[in-house]
Amino acid sequence: MAGTRIEKDSLGTMEVPEECYYGIQTLRAVQNFCITQIPISHYPRFLYSLAFIKKAAAAANASLGLLDQEMSMAISRACDDILDDKLHDQFVVDVIQGGAGTSANMNANEVIANRTLELMGYEKGRYDIVSPNTHINMSQSTNDVYPTALRITLILKIRVLIEELEKLARAFEAKRDEFSDVLKIGRTQLQDAVPMTLGQEFGAWGVTMREDMQRLAEAQSLVHEINLGGTAIGTGLNAHPDYRRSVTEYLTAMSALPLISATDLVEATQDTGAYVQLSGVCKRVAVKLSKICNDLRLLSSGPRCGLNEINLPPMAPGSTIMPGKVNPVIPEVVNQVAFTVVGGDITVTMAAEAGQLELNVMEPVIAHTLFNNLDMLRRACSTLRERCVMGITANREHCRRMVENSIGLATALNPYIGYERSAEVAKEALASGRTVAEIVLEKGILSQEELDDILKPESMTAPRQFRSS
Amino acid sequence: MAGTRIEKDSLGTMEVPEECYYGIQTLRAVQNFCITQIPISHYPRFLYSLAFIKKAAAAANASLGLLDQEMSMAISRACDDILDDKLHDQFVVDVIQGGAGTSANMNANEVIANRTLELMGYEKGRYDIVSPNTHINMSQSTNDVYPTALRITLILKIRVLIEELEKLARAFEAKRDEFSDVLKIGRTQLQDAVPMTLGQEFGAWGVTMREDMQRLAEAQSLVHEINLGGTAIGTGLNAHPDYRRSVTEYLTAMSALPLISATDLVEATQDTGAYVQLSGVCKRVAVKLSKICNDLRLLSSGPRCGLNEINLPPMAPGSTIMPGKVNPVIPEVVNQVAFTVVGGDITVTMAAEAGQLELNVMEPVIAHTLFNNLDMLRRACSTLRERCVMGITANREHCRRMVENSIGLATALNPYIGYERSAEVAKEALASGRTVAEIVLEKGILSQEELDDILKPESMTAPRQFRSS
Amino acid sequence: MAGTRIEKDSLGTMEVPEECYYGIQTLRAVQNFCITQIPISHYPRFLYSLAFIKKAAAAANASLGLLDQEMSMAISRACDDILDDKLHDQFVVDVIQGGAGTSANMNANEVIANRTLELMGYEKGRYDIVSPNTHINMSQSTNDVYPTALRITLILKIRVLIEELEKLARAFEAKRDEFSDVLKIGRTQLQDAVPMTLGQEFGAWGVTMREDMQRLAEAQSLVHEINLGGTAIGTGLNAHPDYRRSVTEYLTAMSALPLISATDLVEATQDTGAYVQLSGVCKRVAVKLSKICNDLRLLSSGPRCGLNEINLPPMAPGSTIMPGKVNPVIPEVVNQVAFTVVGGDITVTMAAEAGQLELNVMEPVIAHTLFNNLDMLRRACSTLRERCVMGITANREHCRRMVENSIGLATALNPYIGYERSAEVAKEALASGRTVAEIVLEKGILSQEELDDILKPESMTAPRQFRSS
Amino acid sequence: MAGTRIEKDSLGTMEVPEECYYGIQTLRAVQNFCITQIPISHYPRFLYSLAFIKKAAAAANASLGLLDQEMSMAISRACDDILDDKLHDQFVVDVIQGGAGTSANMNANEVIANRTLELMGYEKGRYDIVSPNTHINMSQSTNDVYPTALRITLILKIRVLIEELEKLARAFEAKRDEFSDVLKIGRTQLQDAVPMTLGQEFGAWGVTMREDMQRLAEAQSLVHEINLGGTAIGTGLNAHPDYRRSVTEYLTAMSALPLISATDLVEATQDTGAYVQLSGVCKRVAVKLSKICNDLRLLSSGPRCGLNEINLPPMAPGSTIMPGKVNPVIPEVVNQVAFTVVGGDITVTMAAEAGQLELNVMEPVIAHTLFNNLDMLRRACSTLRERCVMGITANREHCRRMVENSIGLATALNPYIGYERSAEVAKEALASGRTVAEIVLEKGILSQEELDDILKPESMTAPRQFRSS
Repeated sequence: MAGTRIEKDSLGTMEVPEECYYGIQTLRAVQNFCITQIPISHYPRFLYSLAFIKKAAAAANASLGLLDQEMSMAISRACDDILDDKLHDQFVVDVIQGGAGTSANMNANEVIANRTLELMGYEKGRYDIVSPNTHINMSQSTNDVYPTALRITLILKIRVLIEELEKLARAFEAKRDEFSDVLKIGRTQLQDAVPMTLGQEFGAWGVTMREDMQRLAEAQSLVHEINLGGTAIGTGLNAHPDYRRSVTEYLTAMSALPLISATDLVEATQDTGAYVQLSGVCKRVAVKLSKICNDLRLLSSGPRCGLNEINLPPMAPGSTIMPGKVNPVIPEVVNQVAFTVVGGDITVTMAAEAGQLELNVMEPVIAHTLFNNLDMLRRACSTLRERCVMGITANREHCRRMVENSIGLATALNPYIGYERSAEVAKEALASGRTVAEIVLEKGILSQEELDDILKPESMTAPRQFRSS
Repeated sequence: MAGTRIEKDSLGTMEVPEECYYGIQTLRAVQNFCITQIPISHYPRFLYSLAFIKKAAAAANASLGLLDQEMSMAISRACDDILDDKLHDQFVVDVIQGGAGTSANMNANEVIANRTLELMGYEKGRYDIVSPNTHINMSQSTNDVYPTALRITLILKIRVLIEELEKLARAFEAKRDEFSDVLKIGRTQLQDAVPMTLGQEFGAWGVTMREDMQRLAEAQSLVHEINLGGTAIGTGLNAHPDYRRSVTEYLTAMSALPLISATDLVEATQDTGAYVQLSGVCKRVAVKLSKICNDLRLLSSGPRCGLNEINLPPMAPGSTIMPGKVNPVIPEVVNQVAFTVVGGDITVTMAAEAGQLELNVMEPVIAHTLFNNLDMLRRACSTLRERCVMGITANREHCRRMVENSIGLATALNPYIGYERSAEVAKEALASGRTVAEIVLEKGILSQEELDDILKPESMTAPRQFRSS
Repeated sequence: MAGTRIEKDSLGTMEVPEECYYGIQTLRAVQNFCITQIPISHYPRFLYSLAFIKKAAAAANASLGLLDQEMSMAISRACDDILDDKLHDQFVVDVIQGGAGTSANMNANEVIANRTLELMGYEKGRYDIVSPNTHINMSQSTNDVYPTALRITLILKIRVLIEELEKLARAFEAKRDEFSDVLKIGRTQLQDAVPMTLGQEFGAWGVTMREDMQRLAEAQSLVHEINLGGTAIGTGLNAHPDYRRSVTEYLTAMSALPLISATDLVEATQDTGAYVQLSGVCKRVAVKLSKICNDLRLLSSGPRCGLNEINLPPMAPGSTIMPGKVNPVIPEVVNQVAFTVVGGDITVTMAAEAGQLELNVMEPVIAHTLFNNLDMLRRACSTLRERCVMGITANREHCRRMVENSIGLATALNPYIGYERSAEVAKEALASGRTVAEIVLEKGILSQEELDDILKPESMTAPRQFRSS
Repeated sequence: MAGTRIEKDSLGTMEVPEECYYGIQTLRAVQNFCITQIPISHYPRFLYSLAFIKKAAAAANASLGLLDQEMSMAISRACDDILDDKLHDQFVVDVIQGGAGTSANMNANEVIANRTLELMGYEKGRYDIVSPNTHINMSQSTNDVYPTALRITLILKIRVLIEELEKLARAFEAKRDEFSDVLKIGRTQLQDAVPMTLGQEFGAWGVTMREDMQRLAEAQSLVHEINLGGTAIGTGLNAHPDYRRSVTEYLTAMSALPLISATDLVEATQDTGAYVQLSGVCKRVAVKLSKICNDLRLLSSGPRCGLNEINLPPMAPGSTIMPGKVNPVIPEVVNQVAFTVVGGDITVTMAAEAGQLELNVMEPVIAHTLFNNLDMLRRACSTLRERCVMGITANREHCRRMVENSIGLATALNPYIGYERSAEVAKEALASGRTVAEIVLEKGILSQEELDDILKPESMTAPRQFRSS
């Protein structure tokens, strides 16, 4: 356990364990904020984002003659360690914190300062040589560093979510093709309506996922706008006039992300509109996934006393007391993720509304909620695809029998046998409890071939020329 | 009160007052749905949308030879009456209704059928000649008519909201210019931070409004996609193969809106993603307005025991018992609109999630909530601009005195007098209770001219070259 | 249209139409707040509440010698007019308003002052004789009058909602008894589970409604606490020491409601906890109603391709294009009310959170939202009962056939034929597609009489002794 | 790492690491549900609850002769291990899971079965001797075990939250007493109103906390109702007629909690009303805490350019770039917890609404959300008390100067100098910018002693007899 070093800040001194790269302000934050018990290291992409920013700032400061070249290089190497997944265990402050992210920023400043000292051959804690505030945070403020790190993290997380949605869309599309010849009854208001193919059902879900991908990409473009160089309130006080341009260029190059500097940094520093927008889009994705999962559960209900059109792959014995029962556990868990995301949207909304004057101090809860929602959506999509959609099979015969049995078939026969006769057939079917198919065949209104032709799935996928005969 | 006519539908017969243009199905709906007591005529743009659709459908049906030319012309004239603000009192069904909008659609079908009959020289109720279902609703289903009407209405309402936001943005920009020379203290976390201009404060709000306008325009473009021609479930069953293209062209021409037919009508018929997205954007606008109003209330707090930086124009005697009190009643009412919009977003979200299979039956509550939110936001923006923002005045001297009195001034002096000395001055100011300005002048660190130069508002609006002096 | 009179307040003068009982401050409010376009007269119980308060205050002030007896009597008669449903058209300010209800309070003060003047033989506008502020509002502040009126209104509205819930519970209980002998399959996770009776299904809903009634009654008891006598911020400044007790007694007697004076009036003046609690309970009621309606829609799905266990009474022709389709329009509209109530809860929550220091200025939106939610819930309950639940019929044979066809029957046979044999039967049924009933009969495991005995509905309503053999 | 054992369930076989107490179904669940990455062991009280239930069930089954005494005793000892904080690392399934908690229940069944086997001298995996399903889950179903465990956990968590609220209330009450003689201006709508004491401010918050405690206690009493004995759908199928009574008695005795068996188990099995109610109460607590923290941040705003009435204890250096800045980081973090709790309420609400027919399959997300919200509220209360409230100090002189400077003082002088003269003084103060106190002293309207007497804090805490002169 070794010894400790004494560190000092404006509130006094504390003992910091010698092996720790973080320092006194991180320690204070750990004591102050014991809320979620989830450290910021839970989100590695957030640590990468902080490292990119600190590295870019060091480069910009050095290029402007504000920071010694050697120290700049050492800081850069320290940041690279974080990008190489080292030192992550040193990022210990709670994801939800007061101070608008000051603790997260200071945690990064202290870890990087001490690692820089080490790389330069000094002992940890020698802030007289490399200071977390003076050197690592140079030309910066929590109020421009934290939102920028938040935004870079969001960009990265949206990217992987879009990739998962793409895979899920493709899985739906594969089923669309596989089930393109499965005729089934369409339902509106849970009541039997008119025929369609099971392929159309899955195809619609694929379309929905692709629309979600577009909305996410649009929301992603909004978080490309960063406010580095604005310092405390966006006026850029105490930053070199060329720093903003320089740091943005370095950061763009280092991160390979198309970041741009916001036009009005005062606005950008207090603004949380892009988070609210993104959260709204996440909610939209969640709602769509939930609707699809509701449908999957409906269509697979039964097996004997439900709709029973499709079979979800069994993933777990379904019941502790009912043998043979297999439950739609995967859609169920996706529904629960969706409810969490919708709830999170309210959290983000209230946090955004609570911003006051030059800063929104509630950004940490916005960050945590969005990070968590994006992660959960990604995992839900991947789970849904791998453990459910890909293994779905259709009960073709049952689906077709239901069409033939439905009154809605009469509506579909309308253009072929005329409204009058189809209404009569419908009426007789309702009264007798017999099927529409039986009646039209028995009465010789249609031959079996004609009926089969009409019920060909391809006839159901699009409007068809009326036959007046 | 005159007589009645007997009408008949599949559930039986009812007496309809002779003077009514609506018929039996509308009457049933009025009895079934007494929920909000707000009739659909509360939203005239929704009636226009229905009229456009029915008129376009009649034209398309006539052009495809499905509908008699004379009847088509008469239907068209009946629809024009609605577009001319006639017959609105005949749209009596509750805005919230079961049946996915069937009652609203039938209300329109019946009113137009009876007006058409009248124009053709027949008595109302002669559905053997002009039938609400067969003729007015020809090639249509509630499931494509209602969502299309909803979308057209949204387009029109978004348009006027954007216009109001533009005016509000301009009002903020006028104040940005008017207050460009008012130096004030910026605040983060409600604590004194560093100087800025009051113009920057208002300028940021203008930027925010303009961003909202862009987000609304994007959301608007999503509701341009319509599903006419899909009929019951999007398969276009019983519609002529050319109907979809034709009706969309007529509708686009008649409404002068850039509508497009959705690629996958099965998806489009069940999809509510665009509503969720739009609702999320409305929520974003609401959150931003609320944040700005919170700031207005903070900055005008006092007059003696608050921040007192600005004065809102007095709109009402403030208190029933405290003479002379004037309250920020306009921002307060905007806050309340914002909370309503955020609540409405949850309503829309849950309604969207509740869609099942081929249709979302909850669309009426989505329609009502979005219509109401867009209307209230528009009125809130206009109220805020006219009755508050335009009349705001600044307490220039008080704002400046606070800067001089703040410790944050020391931070601003950093680049001019060095970090060491500014920290010393800050410490002395904190200990003695005196102002930073007093101390630097008294100690001869800066002359009055130098201080005035540093505190020139233009110095605060952007980073400035360091002077090592 | 006659003439106008000139009125004056601290902001200046305005012309008020002669026939109006309201005055200048009401006029200003009408101009300031055009948000919902719903006047406070939309809620008559709120007007009654204001009248009760003003009448009680006049009585208390007179009894304390602060107000002339004759004027007190005239004020009382003016208030009685409002209680007799007169003058309601004079309450014209928007339900959502800034100023924490000042406009609603002044609207009442002005209407009552002018009616009092009239009753005393003076012309309207003679505020030198009867002043809205000095006399009608004596010993009061908006900050104690408005919350008290809100609370009385809530008590009255909760009362009628509880009455409707009681009727709905009884309707479910009637169906519980009617369907006590209808055996059906129970479902968990939409998968076939084990048998139960349809009576148990409806009985559970009855129990749920009765629990909701209890929760509402508890929430109602919280709004019995009022803060009259606290004046501006709860300190009772400028109110006679005996006023608080006196006005509470008068008000309790006049309204016949068990009102009590809050212990800490400073807390009571800023507190909105009871509203948040009540709103949460409304949300609970809404969620339960929505769940029941979802179930009704599921159980009545079909008729041919769904569960088809029950039939909802047809209330409207179901489709504009599918003949014979009847939709569950009543449950659908109740779902939509539920979503509105849940959204409203967020509005109330955000408004409550936005309260600052000694007052919550957002109370008008809380009032409007709660009033509207309570009204809509009441109408939804009554609609659901009258137009749906009371007319529900069961498809007994179909329900029983599904039980016999289900694998879950094997689970139910467990105690009678042993786990081993029932598992075997289940396996065979699954493999062969045959019914469990068929197999046990064919194999002679049970006789038809034994099977019938086991499937007697009464056996399904409670645990039964193991191993009858 | 040692070897593995082969386990088998209805879906096939898997290799389970030899050292694991959990088995094949737990393994499947771990693979199926990778959503939050938080295992159920994150909530130790939930494991205790499961252990209590399994222990009580074993005792009840033994007493009814259904389970061998020796095995019952061994099961009991295995459960005791969990209650002694052993085996917690074996509870590995994700807190959010499909299957309505089946995986959590099976995780418990498997761990207890294997530990029981071990205690009885057998190897793990010998389910032919002690079976997770047959013996550990005997007379139970996930559908009664999981909700009961959820409820017991909630009871325990509410208890500790109430304890923390009690401490927080006491902290506010200590400050109420400490600041009972600090005169300050009260504010409504952020505008200066009339005087009060700082003690009254803190006292109100104490009252609020005590009300919250009562609401929580009421909500707690609702979750005392359990549904053990209902098995799959509440009909008690396959459970011994005496089991329900017996297991409830054992469980009540073992847990020392006043649990009661619900009247209607069918209703109880599907019901989530108590969770919605509790979540609503948590939201209420959150809203109140957030409002108080907003006030703390307002009252401590400044130090030079804000209200500056109180000082929060400095917990962290406030800014990375502004020296001397100290921020209200503790209230800020409490606000963020509040927003999370409000968001969670929507999650719970949607999950409750999504319940279908005999079961609510979304209970895991309800459990996780409520557990997390209760934990976070508890930590927020304790953080707020220890790190903020207890160390708050008042700026007495500044508070008093603001009262003397305020126009509201004139209102307070009303009863002493008459309305006319106080209005005149107010007008003069407003026009001249001077203080009300100065003017009344200068004009000789009051002597310094009289003014001091009027401004004695005790005069402000309650109404005072008019006209002392």
